[in-house]
Amino acid sequence: MNQAPTDRTRIRRVASNAHYDSTTLHAIIDDAYLCHIAFSDARGAHCIPTACWRGGEHLYIHGSNGSRMVRHLLENECCVSITHLDGLVLARSAFNHSMNYRSAMIYGRFQAVEGADARYALETLMEKLTPGRQADIRPGSDKEYAATTVLRIALTEAACKVRRGGPDDDETDLAWPAWAGVLPWTRAPMAPQPDPACTISAPAYVSDWLRRG
Amino acid sequence: MNQAPTDRTRIRRVASNAHYDSTTLHAIIDDAYLCHIAFSDARGAHCIPTACWRGGEHLYIHGSNGSRMVRHLLENECCVSITHLDGLVLARSAFNHSMNYRSAMIYGRFQAVEGADARYALETLMEKLTPGRQADIRPGSDKEYAATTVLRIALTEAACKVRRGGPDDDETDLAWPAWAGVLPWTRAPMAPQPDPACTISAPAYVSDWLRRG
Repeated sequence: MNQAPTDRTRIRRVASNAHYDSTTLHAIIDDAYLCHIAFSDARGAHCIPTACWRGGEHLYIHGSNGSRMVRHLLENECCVSITHLDGLVLARSAFNHSMNYRSAMIYGRFQAVEGADARYALETLMEKLTPGRQADIRPGSDKEYAATTVLRIALTEAACKVRRGGPDDDETDLAWPAWAGVLPWTRAPMAPQPDPACTISAPAYVSDWLRRG
Repeated sequence: MNQAPTDRTRIRRVASNAHYDSTTLHAIIDDAYLCHIAFSDARGAHCIPTACWRGGEHLYIHGSNGSRMVRHLLENECCVSITHLDGLVLARSAFNHSMNYRSAMIYGRFQAVEGADARYALETLMEKLTPGRQADIRPGSDKEYAATTVLRIALTEAACKVRRGGPDDDETDLAWPAWAGVLPWTRAPMAPQPDPACTISAPAYVSDWLRRG
């Protein structure tokens, strides 16, 4: 990234919120556990949610070999979107209400990741979900790895759009007697729920969960 | 809804998690503030996040008249997706890790909502965001309403997929000595942030925010 937007990634509406740098893009992906992927086939456009993670300058996903999405994505262009909703922006006028968000959009074609690279990529996913857990679990078998396709898409044709801060009221509305400001959200962890059959005491990545977010 | 899935909405992977009833669909939409919309044009597939809300058996969005998305959606089929990510599902084996989620997918074509229906729809959005606020704010002017397109899509061709509960380990993995269970998330409100220039005391929809979620 860090390059000029293309015809597909140039942000036209509220262009001042556009970002085309790697730092912004990486942070949005790294804070996400899922993306939505748009692609089209003979039946029309589809918008599929799936788990995602980043490795260097690629966004990774995985799926079952037989899935229609996996097969289609390897042969066609698509658009990947990630959106974090950060809050409601309450302006003095109805029209100027907005939302705070961080969003990323990536265009291109996925390629398959094979062999040891695929196994490494899946370990990267596990490390993102629960740092340190890889050593505890029953590793994937050759059969399980063979049933899974890992795909990655380069972060070359991408754009981010970020809105932060308070309402942007018209000058003439500033005296209107309505509360104005932001009602923010965050993704908050809740208490871990052990499997009823689990007798193992909680490792650090479980006991630390409530401090994560 | 409450009807047989179509070729586009029939869920094939883990079909036991599929739901085709209105109650499930309505609850997923009503808990969402944004959706992702997939559509295709000459430049390829696009995946655009936008605010959404429900009125009866339709999902509503709005946008500036001039936006490419608005113009395109009125003339083409699309796919709308909403996904709530509820937690990480930690199994004893790498392969059986999963996520808990509630997702909805709607296929069809948006239609424009006009005149008084459009104004009513926008009031419905405001009521969803901040119940009771409509009376406080400076209402939309004719010019502002004229610049905004409200669109709706029927909830007729739709499907939901929901995963709940703990890990689904292979029988042979149950004795593996790894912690198993769910690390859940929720969308948590944070303290309201008044605009620095705001001297109005917080109304109920602001002071109640931390009890919302």
